[in-house]
Amino acid sequence: MGQAGCKGLYQSLLDYKTEKYVIAKNKKVGLLYRLLQVSILTYLVVWVFLVKKCYQDTDTSLQSSIITKVKGVTFTNTSELGERLWDVVDYVVPPQGENVFFVVTNLVVTPNQRQDTCAESERIPDALCHEDSDCPPGKPVVAGNGVRSGRCLRAGSAQKGTCEIFAWCPVETKSRPVKPLLGEAEDFTVYIKNFIRFPKFNFSKTNVLDTRDKTFLKSCKFGPKNPYCPIFRLGSVVSWTGSNFREMAVQGGVIGIQIEWDCDLDRPPSECNPRYYFNRLDNRFSENSISSGYNFRFAKYYRDAAGVEFRTLFKAYGIRFDVMVNGKGSFFCDLVLIYFIKKSNFYRDKKYEEVRDLEGLAQMAESSRQRVAPEQQLAEQPEVQDGGSGQKENGCVCRQLLQPTRITR
Amino acid sequence: MGQAGCKGLYQSLLDYKTEKYVIAKNKKVGLLYRLLQVSILTYLVVWVFLVKKCYQDTDTSLQSSIITKVKGVTFTNTSELGERLWDVVDYVVPPQGENVFFVVTNLVVTPNQRQDTCAESERIPDALCHEDSDCPPGKPVVAGNGVRSGRCLRAGSAQKGTCEIFAWCPVETKSRPVKPLLGEAEDFTVYIKNFIRFPKFNFSKTNVLDTRDKTFLKSCKFGPKNPYCPIFRLGSVVSWTGSNFREMAVQGGVIGIQIEWDCDLDRPPSECNPRYYFNRLDNRFSENSISSGYNFRFAKYYRDAAGVEFRTLFKAYGIRFDVMVNGKGSFFCDLVLIYFIKKSNFYRDKKYEEVRDLEGLAQMAESSRQRVAPEQQLAEQPEVQDGGSGQKENGCVCRQLLQPTRITR
Amino acid sequence: MGQAGCKGLYQSLLDYKTEKYVIAKNKKVGLLYRLLQVSILTYLVVWVFLVKKCYQDTDTSLQSSIITKVKGVTFTNTSELGERLWDVVDYVVPPQGENVFFVVTNLVVTPNQRQDTCAESERIPDALCHEDSDCPPGKPVVAGNGVRSGRCLRAGSAQKGTCEIFAWCPVETKSRPVKPLLGEAEDFTVYIKNFIRFPKFNFSKTNVLDTRDKTFLKSCKFGPKNPYCPIFRLGSVVSWTGSNFREMAVQGGVIGIQIEWDCDLDRPPSECNPRYYFNRLDNRFSENSISSGYNFRFAKYYRDAAGVEFRTLFKAYGIRFDVMVNGKGSFFCDLVLIYFIKKSNFYRDKKYEEVRDLEGLAQMAESSRQRVAPEQQLAEQPEVQDGGSGQKENGCVCRQLLQPTRITR
Repeated sequence: MGQAGCKGLYQSLLDYKTEKYVIAKNKKVGLLYRLLQVSILTYLVVWVFLVKKCYQDTDTSLQSSIITKVKGVTFTNTSELGERLWDVVDYVVPPQGENVFFVVTNLVVTPNQRQDTCAESERIPDALCHEDSDCPPGKPVVAGNGVRSGRCLRAGSAQKGTCEIFAWCPVETKSRPVKPLLGEAEDFTVYIKNFIRFPKFNFSKTNVLDTRDKTFLKSCKFGPKNPYCPIFRLGSVVSWTGSNFREMAVQGGVIGIQIEWDCDLDRPPSECNPRYYFNRLDNRFSENSISSGYNFRFAKYYRDAAGVEFRTLFKAYGIRFDVMVNGKGSFFCDLVLIYFIKKSNFYRDKKYEEVRDLEGLAQMAESSRQRVAPEQQLAEQPEVQDGGSGQKENGCVCRQLLQPTRITR
Repeated sequence: MGQAGCKGLYQSLLDYKTEKYVIAKNKKVGLLYRLLQVSILTYLVVWVFLVKKCYQDTDTSLQSSIITKVKGVTFTNTSELGERLWDVVDYVVPPQGENVFFVVTNLVVTPNQRQDTCAESERIPDALCHEDSDCPPGKPVVAGNGVRSGRCLRAGSAQKGTCEIFAWCPVETKSRPVKPLLGEAEDFTVYIKNFIRFPKFNFSKTNVLDTRDKTFLKSCKFGPKNPYCPIFRLGSVVSWTGSNFREMAVQGGVIGIQIEWDCDLDRPPSECNPRYYFNRLDNRFSENSISSGYNFRFAKYYRDAAGVEFRTLFKAYGIRFDVMVNGKGSFFCDLVLIYFIKKSNFYRDKKYEEVRDLEGLAQMAESSRQRVAPEQQLAEQPEVQDGGSGQKENGCVCRQLLQPTRITR
Repeated sequence: MGQAGCKGLYQSLLDYKTEKYVIAKNKKVGLLYRLLQVSILTYLVVWVFLVKKCYQDTDTSLQSSIITKVKGVTFTNTSELGERLWDVVDYVVPPQGENVFFVVTNLVVTPNQRQDTCAESERIPDALCHEDSDCPPGKPVVAGNGVRSGRCLRAGSAQKGTCEIFAWCPVETKSRPVKPLLGEAEDFTVYIKNFIRFPKFNFSKTNVLDTRDKTFLKSCKFGPKNPYCPIFRLGSVVSWTGSNFREMAVQGGVIGIQIEWDCDLDRPPSECNPRYYFNRLDNRFSENSISSGYNFRFAKYYRDAAGVEFRTLFKAYGIRFDVMVNGKGSFFCDLVLIYFIKKSNFYRDKKYEEVRDLEGLAQMAESSRQRVAPEQQLAEQPEVQDGGSGQKENGCVCRQLLQPTRITR
């Protein structure tokens, strides 16, 4: 570039280029112009701030715990088991009362199995044989119950039989009862205790009435009059999903129970209420499809007087309930507050344990970027996490951009 | 401010200020200008709408249920246990067939433990002693098996020994077998049944072929020809993660199985297919590190004829499989549809049970802000949730801004 | 529209309308103008890029596995059970060492229950009776232990009694011990092994020191000097939540342990460290509320010499620990890199197994839209997932817009 070009560039670099305006000194046009401005401002304030609540800060990192407890007994009288009473300990698996629990509704029992040799079940395609050579010793039966001993067992003079196997004998041969053994489980109830906490706002709540009246939970049922009595009849839960308990009890299935907490924490805590949703989470439209139903096998192990182990095998059909919690809580937007309201503590209710310092929040947003050495972190005793979920929220984010967090435990 | 100033302000308030435009009546320049406009519009329509599918509504609140079932038997012959056949009930923990299951591959068995006093294991550093005063009675052994009785047990004239403890005796002393006891578990199979549902679109699907042919699942194997037969050989699953089953079986480990449903619901349901990913979720690169492997202890409890309890302690090494599901479904964007297409139901296939009314959606988006009283919510019978996931999506959000929801149950 | 109108439209369609500019050749104004431009640019580079790290790509689809192991023994001497030692197998439920485990701290034991008839507990409101007609035979007692036989059992000449029931007899009648039976569990320790992986960046790490020194984990304790020894004393964990272990042990409760990995992968892996948070996840402020505490019942089943089943029923109070992992990893933003840096592999450390090809990523973003046929997907052997989390990230998204993914398994 020549000297002239350089000089031109330098000059044009310092040119100030601006748009040329026309100012119309006309009252009618001016009034219209200002009206337009005011309406845009009104739109922003009314729609974006008040209706859409864009000024709010949202916490989606919900902490939640679920405790479940099933109640109910039923009596059965079968040729196999005789008279038998079933209580919760007998029919709920696992017993711990977590968010997923299985209620046995139908059973195939094979008692007194011992390690021995016996004929494989005729239902296993791979076990059919005509002669001993069809049963190579030591080879497991595919999808079967044991390892072949080398003999083909045929009843009398039959041409076909099944391989003899080394297994827990006798093997399970009975079919699923057509009528569910524990169909009465329809009337059992489940108590679902849910505790939630929004760490950012240090707000917590349960779905159970906070009372000292010990008889409350012994007598109440969930309903319009008792929204804070989360005790549900199993049969009703199933019917709310559009299914029938007795039908479902035969083959088993999965039910999803969803608890949703969508809380506007600018309002009083009493307006932060749980909502319940019930869904069937297995293939209800293909009753006869191979993929329908839910069952599993478990056993109780015993030892006889000689110290030899034996077991009772149960093939349990039943309904699994998966309780899921999701939700979010909203509160005044930090950004807006940091700039416009100095003493925002005023807005928090006394009933929340601690009030988050907004300036502390700003610092936190900074500090989460700089690595915290474990020494700093665990000074003497890690403090109760009050908003340290590590989620920064410097900008004002509209709710619809935020997805609910699903927590399954 | 004086009267003049006020008047000036009032006048300038009603001034209408606008930019001054030049209109060039030149066909070449004009053509270029319009071409530019058209290309921007084309970009928007083609790229943003058709390619990026920004017009779509996305549902990330996937509901999912997993049922797993392991099949396979194996035979072992050890000096300790004699001839023994292991079936699913023996080696899968827990038995319920949930999304996390553990397959025992190696075992240390300590039979016939009773509450008694005996010598602590020599492997416990805290139990070593020279004389009785090294064993303060009543003090538990750190990371040990029992509570000290006060005596130091030394074999013969040895200088060092271990404290006598009150514990389940004899204590476990054997080491992990170098060759996995149940290495044959490599050939076991697992059937992973997954049902998913996008509540917003009321779309559901399973990963199992919808057939009534009962033999299908008894004979099929997952593969290119059978993508809807989710039956996996355990050895193959481990090899797909880059590990070796027999090596992993010695010390144990964790395998993650991820099922991903990324569905464009504008296309037919048959194009919404699951994809499977397999990962090793423990430290495979530090085989000899202290943090490698996976084991736990459990026991079977018995009572002898006199009613005294005894137990068999198992230290089980094995592979835990964690099945995780994530996914999202996309459909026409609400915003665009609400404004431009009135009767959008037309677009939904008849095979979906119910079609969500878009106007209902708009109301829902409103109602989720106003607290719903429990009476309203639970009128008579809670309806099947059809889109009430509480997730509002008023704007058109590009897919890449949305993260997949992980559901672990 | 007439011909004239058409012609006018056509002409105005090709008009090129632009703003009219003023160029002020004034050095002072020009300098000011350029200074303003430079400061905006500086703001963008320094604040948005360097401080806010908007150029980074973020992976929130964390994969995680948790293995837990409790250690500790305690000795009890009660009239009921005699001298008894409790080890991990006795008091931890379930035994598998998953991310949720329950430590029994208090027990009500009802030994030798058999299927028989006996009087219902007086605590069950529904079982109270004055005469036999109050006990309709076959009807289960609501929230009770069995099915009515039809008789009303009254002690001596008392007016009131309870119905006779068919149940597991004798029924549980004892109250919860006021002093926790296993209060010593305070000194038990739990080892929490966590392995995480960011699939997008193929970065993985554990929270345990990578050493071959087998004694390390036998002697270390979590603390400022040992941040990579995740062995926690249960009593300390409870105290960090602001609660007292002995008090909590009486009725039970739930503790949440959160592990957070917020990793800037532009820095060395040694700076990607876990942070631990401890919270109480049940209603600690309503100690006497009906919704406080955590307990469940389980049983051990036995058979006597005659083959008749009997069981010991346990009502276990205790503390459930829920370990949750969340986190995200950030790395250079794709968009920026794709355009400006061709060989970005340079930036990745050799210690990561594989380096993701950025062009591959761009293709992946494309391919995730086109349906992948299972044949393509499962060619011979599904490759280890290297970034195929299906999450596209074409734009530069600020961190604060992204929420942490919570993974509970």
